[in-house]
Amino acid sequence: MKLVCSKSNLLTGLQVVSKAVPNKTTMSILECILIDSTGGEIKLTANDMELGIETIIEGDIVEKGIIALDAKIFLEIVRKLPDNDITITTDSNFKTTITCEKAKFNIIGKSGEDFSYLPMIERNESIVLSQYTLKEVIRQTIFSISDNDNNKLMSGELFEINGEEMRVISLDGHRISIRKIHLKNSYPSQKVVVPGKTLNEISKILGGDADKDVTIFFTDKHIVFEFENTTVVSRLIEGEYFKIDQMLSSDYETKVEINKKELLDCIDRATLLIKEGDKKPIIINITDGSMELKINSTVGSMDEEIDISKVGKDLMIGFNPKFLIDALRVIDDETITIYLVNPKAPCFIRDEENNYIYLILPVNFTTV
Amino acid sequence: MKLVCSKSNLLTGLQVVSKAVPNKTTMSILECILIDSTGGEIKLTANDMELGIETIIEGDIVEKGIIALDAKIFLEIVRKLPDNDITITTDSNFKTTITCEKAKFNIIGKSGEDFSYLPMIERNESIVLSQYTLKEVIRQTIFSISDNDNNKLMSGELFEINGEEMRVISLDGHRISIRKIHLKNSYPSQKVVVPGKTLNEISKILGGDADKDVTIFFTDKHIVFEFENTTVVSRLIEGEYFKIDQMLSSDYETKVEINKKELLDCIDRATLLIKEGDKKPIIINITDGSMELKINSTVGSMDEEIDISKVGKDLMIGFNPKFLIDALRVIDDETITIYLVNPKAPCFIRDEENNYIYLILPVNFTTV
Repeated sequence: MKLVCSKSNLLTGLQVVSKAVPNKTTMSILECILIDSTGGEIKLTANDMELGIETIIEGDIVEKGIIALDAKIFLEIVRKLPDNDITITTDSNFKTTITCEKAKFNIIGKSGEDFSYLPMIERNESIVLSQYTLKEVIRQTIFSISDNDNNKLMSGELFEINGEEMRVISLDGHRISIRKIHLKNSYPSQKVVVPGKTLNEISKILGGDADKDVTIFFTDKHIVFEFENTTVVSRLIEGEYFKIDQMLSSDYETKVEINKKELLDCIDRATLLIKEGDKKPIIINITDGSMELKINSTVGSMDEEIDISKVGKDLMIGFNPKFLIDALRVIDDETITIYLVNPKAPCFIRDEENNYIYLILPVNFTTV
Repeated sequence: MKLVCSKSNLLTGLQVVSKAVPNKTTMSILECILIDSTGGEIKLTANDMELGIETIIEGDIVEKGIIALDAKIFLEIVRKLPDNDITITTDSNFKTTITCEKAKFNIIGKSGEDFSYLPMIERNESIVLSQYTLKEVIRQTIFSISDNDNNKLMSGELFEINGEEMRVISLDGHRISIRKIHLKNSYPSQKVVVPGKTLNEISKILGGDADKDVTIFFTDKHIVFEFENTTVVSRLIEGEYFKIDQMLSSDYETKVEINKKELLDCIDRATLLIKEGDKKPIIINITDGSMELKINSTVGSMDEEIDISKVGKDLMIGFNPKFLIDALRVIDDETITIYLVNPKAPCFIRDEENNYIYLILPVNFTTV
């Protein structure tokens, strides 16, 4: 095989596919990136058997061929080469020569025949959204998946399509994050659970451009994301997702409007008194016109008051401060509304149209 | 005690003195920063018994007093407070209240009486140089101190003053770094060995401003750096430093002029084939007009040629690539000159005026 392509094209392609290279594996072929030019295009592929990424890069194919190269070392070599054309040559013993200007690297590759190609997916039903929207919706929900493997479904996010609406939902047993997106077209109903790892990796690859689209295909077992020259294929998580709508309620006893930044900064300050792993709640005391936040730990104590506008009953309630911080960080509104019932019932941070809903369970606390 | 000062003044002061707070210690008072306003100024001090830093910050003293506060938590609190005036109040039980706008923190301090003050140093002989010069000369030499504790002297740098000239020297048994500085005035001869840790910390505090000076005082056991409102006192390393001038020689058999960036980039590329801890040399083959660099490892091989201008014999020599990279990174010249004798003798990278001299010992190699 002999290929010539620019450093920048090759590097971009390698950075994209390397997101599907597993960190640890006993199958050394999975640590490789496949370069396949047999089809007349330069195609890079990586595949950890759960998640596979394929991208096509521009370049000249002088001699068609196929080779698997160790992802880490290949990426490092390309990154450090001068910004010029790179030539990749392989021989029948998989000896690979990478040259650029006067620099010449020799490494030993592996047979492309041993590589696991991406599964063939029938591309039937699809939806289209912008790269920006997909990247944003992942950022705004991914923090409340569970990293606990006991419940596989909690480690993924529900993508639920209904006509012109898509809801993306994650939950970890203590909180639920829901974002609603309006699609450009109407689509048949569809419900799939996408692994959190897939979403994390794809959000790193997505350009975040509002003018560029992503096409998403669904099958029973897989989800496929197609954008620009890249295809991402991921297995789905099988099983029935949690019945979310039963957990949502629009009843409340106390409704608070508050400046988001003031609240976030205050909780952020309070957490510095809590050592890692220490489960100290932040105690929130809501009265007319004022929210008082208090925290007590072995390190010291803090209290602070924030002006609010309140409707309904006074209330004292405790929360894990991290859960509040996570939700507040991904809300862009300047003023937010919090709905509460009592110190044992979940609180809801949501806008009027339910474009976002963050449900957070309170924690028990003792006032000192 | 009751003090009021701006967040920015307090934060800057705390960041400066916290460089002398030890990471690990069995004496919990050393983990504190002392706030002392008994003398009519707000003075912050930290001291790990080797290195002590003191800085004076602006602010109002409402009631004089003294308190020692845990450095880490105090710095974190101040960092996260709003950008406004901060009030610090203490009572007789060392309970300390830190307020800013509506935020109020309570922490427990320690008696200032338990704190180890900086040693009193007689300020006799001193030299003056700019903050920029001191910061630069540390950066350009500190990498070749030894982190091995077997030879204390190698863990510090020699500051050698002679008339209008100061030389700063470090060595680790495989290489020597020497920088020469022209001072604004003439000073009596002086030789001290300053701990590398002191120099590392002081270079983080120095502003790097060419218009601002540092005054350095010497005593038998201590060195004192004074700049702006800050005083840094460090113990010296005792003992007779190595006789450097015996190791330097201006004889050579081969003299090479080479573009510094090309050489550095090439060696940098080569090192990616070497795994951490693997001691593979880079082999340099010098012939008329060309330097060929080669490296061979279990990962693969690289070779590259660079155009040079050469005087003298052809030579093949091996080096630890890291030692070359360290020296090349801190040389600002576009073209550098390398002086070599034979494959067993040290090479010198130096300019004509000996403003910098980097001596590097070669390593044995076998050509494959």
